[in-house]
This record gives sequence, C-alpha cells and structure tokens, in this order.
Amino acid sequence: MYNFRTDLALERRDIYKKVNKLQEIDGVESTEEDINENIKVTRVKIANENGEKALGKAIGNYVTIDVKKLKIAGEDEIQKTSEVLTSELQKMIDLHTDKQGEILIVGLGNIYVTPDALGPKVINEIDVTRHVIKYLPQYVEEGTRPVSAISPGVLGTTGIETVEILKGIVDNIKPKLLIVIDALASRSIDRISSTIQISDTGIVPGAGVGNTRQEISQNSLGVPVVAIGIPTVVELATLVSDGIDIFIDRLQEKAESNEYLNKLQQNDKYEEVKEALNVGDYNMIVTPKEIDDLIENMKDIVARGINFAV
Amino acid sequence: MYNFRTDLALERRDIYKKVNKLQEIDGVESTEEDINENIKVTRVKIANENGEKALGKAIGNYVTIDVKKLKIAGEDEIQKTSEVLTSELQKMIDLHTDKQGEILIVGLGNIYVTPDALGPKVINEIDVTRHVIKYLPQYVEEGTRPVSAISPGVLGTTGIETVEILKGIVDNIKPKLLIVIDALASRSIDRISSTIQISDTGIVPGAGVGNTRQEISQNSLGVPVVAIGIPTVVELATLVSDGIDIFIDRLQEKAESNEYLNKLQQNDKYEEVKEALNVGDYNMIVTPKEIDDLIENMKDIVARGINFAV
Amino acid sequence: MYNFRTDLALERRDIYKKVNKLQEIDGVESTEEDINENIKVTRVKIANENGEKALGKAIGNYVTIDVKKLKIAGEDEIQKTSEVLTSELQKMIDLHTDKQGEILIVGLGNIYVTPDALGPKVINEIDVTRHVIKYLPQYVEEGTRPVSAISPGVLGTTGIETVEILKGIVDNIKPKLLIVIDALASRSIDRISSTIQISDTGIVPGAGVGNTRQEISQNSLGVPVVAIGIPTVVELATLVSDGIDIFIDRLQEKAESNEYLNKLQQNDKYEEVKEALNVGDYNMIVTPKEIDDLIENMKDIVARGINFAV
Amino acid sequence: MYNFRTDLALERRDIYKKVNKLQEIDGVESTEEDINENIKVTRVKIANENGEKALGKAIGNYVTIDVKKLKIAGEDEIQKTSEVLTSELQKMIDLHTDKQGEILIVGLGNIYVTPDALGPKVINEIDVTRHVIKYLPQYVEEGTRPVSAISPGVLGTTGIETVEILKGIVDNIKPKLLIVIDALASRSIDRISSTIQISDTGIVPGAGVGNTRQEISQNSLGVPVVAIGIPTVVELATLVSDGIDIFIDRLQEKAESNEYLNKLQQNDKYEEVKEALNVGDYNMIVTPKEIDDLIENMKDIVARGINFAV
Repeated sequence: MYNFRTDLALERRDIYKKVNKLQEIDGVESTEEDINENIKVTRVKIANENGEKALGKAIGNYVTIDVKKLKIAGEDEIQKTSEVLTSELQKMIDLHTDKQGEILIVGLGNIYVTPDALGPKVINEIDVTRHVIKYLPQYVEEGTRPVSAISPGVLGTTGIETVEILKGIVDNIKPKLLIVIDALASRSIDRISSTIQISDTGIVPGAGVGNTRQEISQNSLGVPVVAIGIPTVVELATLVSDGIDIFIDRLQEKAESNEYLNKLQQNDKYEEVKEALNVGDYNMIVTPKEIDDLIENMKDIVARGINFAV
Repeated sequence: MYNFRTDLALERRDIYKKVNKLQEIDGVESTEEDINENIKVTRVKIANENGEKALGKAIGNYVTIDVKKLKIAGEDEIQKTSEVLTSELQKMIDLHTDKQGEILIVGLGNIYVTPDALGPKVINEIDVTRHVIKYLPQYVEEGTRPVSAISPGVLGTTGIETVEILKGIVDNIKPKLLIVIDALASRSIDRISSTIQISDTGIVPGAGVGNTRQEISQNSLGVPVVAIGIPTVVELATLVSDGIDIFIDRLQEKAESNEYLNKLQQNDKYEEVKEALNVGDYNMIVTPKEIDDLIENMKDIVARGINFAV
Repeated sequence: MYNFRTDLALERRDIYKKVNKLQEIDGVESTEEDINENIKVTRVKIANENGEKALGKAIGNYVTIDVKKLKIAGEDEIQKTSEVLTSELQKMIDLHTDKQGEILIVGLGNIYVTPDALGPKVINEIDVTRHVIKYLPQYVEEGTRPVSAISPGVLGTTGIETVEILKGIVDNIKPKLLIVIDALASRSIDRISSTIQISDTGIVPGAGVGNTRQEISQNSLGVPVVAIGIPTVVELATLVSDGIDIFIDRLQEKAESNEYLNKLQQNDKYEEVKEALNVGDYNMIVTPKEIDDLIENMKDIVARGINFAV
Repeated sequence: MYNFRTDLALERRDIYKKVNKLQEIDGVESTEEDINENIKVTRVKIANENGEKALGKAIGNYVTIDVKKLKIAGEDEIQKTSEVLTSELQKMIDLHTDKQGEILIVGLGNIYVTPDALGPKVINEIDVTRHVIKYLPQYVEEGTRPVSAISPGVLGTTGIETVEILKGIVDNIKPKLLIVIDALASRSIDRISSTIQISDTGIVPGAGVGNTRQEISQNSLGVPVVAIGIPTVVELATLVSDGIDIFIDRLQEKAESNEYLNKLQQNDKYEEVKEALNVGDYNMIVTPKEIDDLIENMKDIVARGINFAV
C-alpha cells in the first residue's frame, strides 16, 4: 500500500488520484457542499473493497468540514462551525443508534503536549448525564440520553494500550456507541486546526505519524465508533519530502530537471529525508506558532458540536 | 458513628480519644518516629473490629508522614521526604505482592481544579514500564516490575463511577496491586499539603468532604489497594464548627461559659453551621493562597517516592 | 478607622451603618437598579469628606454589579453581564477622557496563583490597538482609540512596587486614562466571583487582605485611574471572626448570651482569631472549590466588557 | 548583509565561513571547551568592526553552552548544566558591574505560547531580593545584591514596544545591569532547547524570525544588557530552503546536479520557499513534539543558573 502519511480520507483520495493519474476511483464516492464562504463540507464514502484497498481506509463514511481563517475566528464563526458539526454528527450517530442510546465520549491524547491536548480538553467541556440519570433522575427530563466521557491518556504515560482501557470500560458500562476525539496528522499545513473529519469506521491512534497503536473500532470494542479527527500537526519529514516533489515539479515545468530527478520524484523519500534531517531522538512537528490559541478555538467548536448532537 | 469529617486515621484517633476522654483505644496501636527535625512518621494499626468500629476505618495499616515547612522546602527537603515515602511505601507493597508483581498506579482527582489536581499531576511523572516490557523487552533489565498508570477523572466530568472504570481496567490487565493517589480533606489547616497518609485498606473518594463515592478497595476490585492520601483542603463548615468548639473551650477556661454553651459544645453543629454560612451552590474550601506551589512540591515528592519504591 | 477588611464600598457602607446603627451616612449616596432577575447594579457615590472618612474610601464613584448563579452561567448570561459592564464602564470612562483618549489597561495579580490570576488572564484577551495605529495605521479606522495593556506582576515575584513599574510606563507612553483590574477580598462568601466593582478612585493592591501596597491612583500616576475589582477570596480569619459575631447574635436572640460574650462582640477579634487559627506561614483563604471555572467565566465577562467599552 | 536567519553567533560564524570558504574571520575569535561528554562551551568574541560587519552582530562576547540529550536529562544533568551557566554568567556580569550592583532580570516572550513561554516561566522562579532589602533589611545579609525581575509581555498583547516598557522601569529603579532571557530561532533542529547563548551586547527581540523589534541594549537603555538566549524553534521556510541546499549538495556529490541547480544553490531561496509553502496567515514553526517538557527542563536550568550567579 502507498504510504499516505495522512489520516484524512480526503487527502488520501487526492493523493491516490494524483499518483495514479485518475479522475475517479472505483468504490470511492464524494460530494461537496459550501455552507458559507468560509465553511465547506466534503462527504467521502468508501463503498466497496476496491475503495478500501485504494485508500487504505475501511468501508464507511468520512465527512470533512473545512473552516477558513479559524485563527481569527470570532464567537459567531465558532458558533456556526459547531452547528455544522452538530448536524453532520447527528446524521452519523443516527445511522448507528437511536435517540436514547447511551454514548461514551473518548478524548484521546496527552493534556501535557499542546498539539495533542485537544481530546482531553474537549472531555472537560462535555455535559455528561449518565450519573445524573442514575443517581438523581428527578433532575433530568424523561428520555434524556445517557452520556459519559473519559480521557484515557496515551500509551507513553499509562503503559496500557488505549484499546485495553476502553475495552474494560465498554464491557462494564455497555454504551451503544462511542465518539472518539483525536488530534490527527495531515499532509497539508493549511489544514492544521481548520479541518474536522467525522467518520464511522473507528480510529487507529498515531496512524498518521508512523506510531501505530491498536485500532479503536467496532472490531475491537464490539460497538460502533464514530471518530472526530482534527489535524494539529504535519510531520516534518513528510513536509520536506513533499516539498522536494513540488520543487522537482517546478524544475520540470521550467524544463530544468534531469533524468535522475525525474526518477527520484517517483520514489518514496520519506525515510531518507528523515535520516538526513538528523532529528535524533525527537519527533519533529510543524505547527503554527499560534497552536495554543487554535486548539482553544477548536476545543470550543468540538465540545459545543458534540453537546448539541448528543 | 461519629462524623469525623477527616480522612486521616491519625486525626480520627485523636478526635476519638478526646471526645471519649480515653488514653488508649482497644484495637488501635500507634508508634511515632522522628526522621529529622522537620519530618515525623506515625504508624497507626487498626488491629481488630473494635478499632475499626471506633475510628470508622477498615482493619489495616495507616502510616502518616508529616513534613514541616513544606512551603519553603528546597530541593534537599523534597528529596529527603520522597525517600521517607519510598521506604514506607516499599514496606507496605512488600506486605501484599512480590518484587515483580505488576502494579497499576491510579491518580484520582480533577486536573482542572487546583486543590484536586495532585493525582493526575503525579501520574504524568510516573515511569511506566509495562508497555516497554511488552513491546521492547530488550530495553529493560530482566525482572523489571511492570508498572502502568492511569488518571480516570472524576464522576462529575466522566459520568462514570471511578470504581467502574477501574474494575474494567483491572479485569483486563490484571495487576497484582493498585497504588491510588488522592487529595484528602483534613480537619486541621496545618496539615494541608504537608501530610502524606499511606494505607493498605483502599479509599473512598470524597469521603472527607461528605461526597461519598463507591470504595476503591480489595473488596470492590479483587486486588490489594495501597492508598496515598494528601490533605489539600479543609472544608469550611468543618473548620468553623471546630472553631466554635475551641472558642467555647477558651470561654470555659476563663470561666465565662454558660450552661447553654456547654451543652452546645457536645453537639455536632456541622449542618447548622453549613446552613448559616449560606454558601449556596458552592463547596467552600479553605486552602493556603500558595496552594498551586504546594501542590507542585507535593507532586515531586509523591512521584519520586513512588518511582523509587516500584 | 474601623478595620473593614473588604475592598467593596457597598460592604463598607453596610458595615458602617450596622456598627453605627444608622439609616443614612452623610456624604454617601446610593441607588439600586435591577437589570434582570439575576443582575443588580448598585451605585454608591462618596460625595464629601465625611463620607470619605466614614468608609475609608476616597471621594468618587463606586458601581457594583452583582450576578447570581454565575457558577452555572451559560453563554447568554455571560454576554448579558459583559454588556452591563460595558455600559457602566463607558459612563465612568467618559467622565474622565474623550472618545479618542489613549487608554492603558493594567491586569494586577499573579498568573500562577489561581484566585489571583484574573488580571493577567484578562490582559491576554484585550484587543490592543496602540501598536497597529502606530505601525500599520492603514489597518484601523480613523479615530480608533489607542489601547495598550500590561500585566506587571506582583511585588513578591518582581521585587518592584507595581506603582513604580506603572509610573515608568505611564511617563513614557502618556495614556490619558488607566483601567486597572484586580482580584479583591470581600467579607461575604456569596460575593466571590459574582460581584464586579467599578470605581474611579484608583486602587490599593492587597488592601483587603492586610497586605497593603502603594496606591495606584491619579495621585501617584498623574492620570485618572478607573478600577475594576472582583472579589475572589474571603480571608479565613475575617470569616471566622464574623462567624463568631453571628454566633453571638443568635445566642442573644435566644437570650442565651452572657455579659462576657456581649462585650466580646463589640471588639475586633481579628488578630486574636488569626493567632488561634494557627495558620503559621500561610495566608489561608476561603474560596469555592470551583474557583478555576469561576475565574474563567469572570475573565470572559471582564475582557468582553472592556473590549466593547474602549 | 547575508540573511543568516539565526540568532546564534556560533551558527553565523559557521555559515559565514562556509559561504565565503574561509578558515578564519578577521575580528572573530573562538575557543571551545568540553565540560563533560554531554556539555560543551564555545566562546566567540567579536573583536572589531570587521567581525561585526561579517556576522551582523555587535562587538562583544558570545558564549554558547551546548547540552546533548537534554530531553532525557535527569536531575543530575540539569544541575550540572545550571552550574556551567552560573559560572559563565558570573564572568559576564563581573565584566560590567560589581558584586553589589543592582540587577533587573527581564523574561521576554508570551506565557500563552508554548515555545515562547521560557522567559516568563523563568521570571516566576527568580529569587528576588530588592523589596526585602528595601522593606525588611533585617532578613537579608549585609551586602546582598538587589535583584528584581519582570516579564513585560510581547508587543502583540501589550501594544507597547518592550523597550518602551523597560526604559520606563530602568529610569525609575536604576539597576546597574539587565539580564534578558529570550527564546531564539536557530537554523538547526538539534539546537532546539539544548543550547544556551550568553552575550553582553543586548538583544533584538524576534530578530531570528524576521519580526524585528527595537533593540534592548546599552544604547537604548543606558545600562549594560547581558542576554541569555535559548533556541526553541526553527522557522519552517528556513529549514526547507536549507533542506534544498543539502539536497543539491548530495546531487553534486553524486554528479547528478545540473547547471540550473548549481546556480540555484547560490541564491537565497527563503522568500520563494515561504510563498510556495502557502502558510497563509500563520507563522509556521518546527519544534519537537516534546517541547512542553523541554521548556520545563530549560526553565529549571536557567532559573537555577541565574539564581546562583546573582
């Protein structure tokens, strides 16, 4: 399989089409909708095994919400985006459970690492109801959906695979559906903290940054898993090898390339570039200097989007 | 049972002796050791059912480490205290599992509420080994104890009883022993962030502040539970009703009391005081202004103490 | 002068009236306005030297906005309160400078101490314009008011009196007016983070907690100083000595007091109580457990209130 | 002048020598010292106007401390590095003031932006003495040096040039020397949070990231300025254009380059690359994922280094 190094189905579709010089991919259907001048929704459906194999993503639905200028977004734009998220999320949830079906919301990531802190920060804002329904039923309307929320930490600080933690909790409290929030890697700088992907096929934590953990999905947990993913970083070696390709593209346009470069462009330079960058023990990431603020804005959007959807 | 409103066995022993005008309690044994001029260790053993009934605490061991002047503690004092903790903790662990027995460390509390953030903060500093032993055994010495760590959140933000979360995880990863870290309530201002209680009888989260959750113990989880508790708050109504008693004490000493006051002193004024304080929806706590710094110092002590002990 | 141990003119007025059994105070005028069922505005004017002497506060205007149930306030209530603040603040500013008069906003307090962090947190949210007007005038409308903002720290971490820092800056950039934000002490628990006091007489940092610093006012800086103060703590010794008075009140009502207690009630017990509480090196404060969240809500209110007013 | 895009004299010296194919630069003297296997000190002296012109840095002393493996540094390594910093800093201070000369320590940067938060975080750890000497002289030894500390914020949040703020304070409290701490940009990934540069020629905030502010130096403030700079980011466009040069280097080594590329290598591609990267409104930075932890380690080193030196 091609090494896409992005978690976004949308980007994988575009890369696959470009690499294979295709207009269409069998088993991959897409539609686009402009909500307003700043917000666009793209719905990608992987419909069969060919699509699954092509994009390396499971059969299912992938909805992407792109927001322009989130950095300078005011209260209004944040509210509007959260409403779009609510609407898309509701449709996805309704495909898999009914209006009273208990939901467990899971915030992946590490609260102490800024670009990875989105999941835990959203969990802190979720309006949980499960314990109120259980202990103080007189305080909630009949028919309120039980909602619980957890932030299980990351393997590096817990020593436990996230899916092991979740398996135990799911077996114990038996929710009907999981919503999992995770920071993703993308290949494109301008998607950082301005894109939200919703999918109903679960999640493989760290898949985008070559640090694969066991998948969190209906397969491993026995209940449907809706994933909300937000790109917060681009891996440096990915960015630089993409940059070299763009650079050779330009040389070719100007007819200044040569045979060696043309061949080079067709290979995967990722490992070589990673070595050349000499990053040692570090996992170098590319992120806007304003990432702390962007994460705060995105936290508000996702928390509100979920609270209204559930 | 008397409403002690403290989680510390030491304080309960002292209150019980004072209220019942006793010198000794059948079934409660204690010894004291001065480590240096600033650090004192008190070991209380509840040895039989009479002791259990008297203090409202399960049969088992309760070790208290008191540290003077923690606020202005330098690096040396922090190191020394963590060594005392290591030593006491090791003895307690060795009573219940062997040197290679897998340990799960649990940090109770809410990272977003300063005086309740100690548990989650310590978890971030624990040297976990379980995943390294599992995935990269060549990087650890043979015989290394598997250690994992989790910060499960609080009922108010998760909607799930902590014990339900832990039950699932314990069933799945099957540790031999749990170490649980929790912020406690005490009755004495000068114990705030300067006392560490270690016990091998589990924990009832929120017990000290009248907000009882299901217990985390061998009974509920099936494995021994060593608890490390640190007082970080005194509840206001507790403090004020204690204050009134002290006030009447002084009146009596000066022979300025009267019959009404003498009788009043023997009653529990807690609920009445709570109402009179008119705290409305809030849970009023008393804490030093320097609590943020104290929690940082205590976090270093507990994390080091645990890392060396396990 | 009576030791009021509160920074709120409103509370001082009530205490003075109670202690002196007065209905009116010469030189102190007040009006009240209910904005809605949750928000009330009280305007106290100290009109002459008698009022100044009685309340120990300078001649000038003191507006208090009280907000009920701020703890559970939603977005709407926060917005409404910030609008009330904007309106009151605008009136106060217009008394002292014109629409284009340059304003320097000062956030007092220590970002690392939760109940004292309000000022620095607000500063981070202020829309400053001074540098844009100076370096990129094409990006702002003609006539935009220059706004700058600073968070000078506290004496304990800087070693410099706040007024010395501000004097230097004011002399250099010559604003027409200062707005100073500070966390206050109040005497009443239910005012914590639910009251905003606006005054045009400057501020004495730490005055409410017996830790007086040099005043920040037109006298010391040469420009008018509008102060926005929010109670975030009650000092413990204050609360307990008030509690004893209430306790004796109740004894008197029940005719269970005695001569000694009646006399005691008329004395200031503060120092004695402070000593009896045995708080050692600590500055014990009383605060809701939810103070972190309350400060966040209050930060949004004050930042929006100021941004719209200037 | 060549656009070095690094604040480190050491890197500028190396780039200048490479670009101009020189072994020595007139007016630039250097010595190296290995402290232990992980710590190296390089002392660069710009001795005359030729050196100043070549490196674009003022005549003066530039000491660089390089620390390997800071990410996994334990308490010992942190202590050792802080001792080296203390020793180098003391020498630099002694060149410009005597043992009792009052020092003002300035932490530049924005506490709310992780890679820019080092300065403000260090300030919080400084042992200030100025106010104790002034108000409680009985608590300090005779001859103690007055130390104060301030974190003035950044132009974007204050609206005021940092030098304007400092000018006011310096004029008011008249220190004999300033120590300024700042996060720098470097050109090399492996210097991030593992290099400390000390110089006695002041600082131009933001110089390394093309965001030049007015200089903070003896010229602008009238007192000597010792600067402590720590690289925490590499700017993305810098890294990519350096990457392209390395890439062409390798092509040349393999004799696979061509005339166009050879010429390209000699030009500054920075602006072109920046545009091609299409980063829009963002200031893209490259940083280790572990930057939060690295900043904490570096904060401890710098705070201790300064506290012992002064």
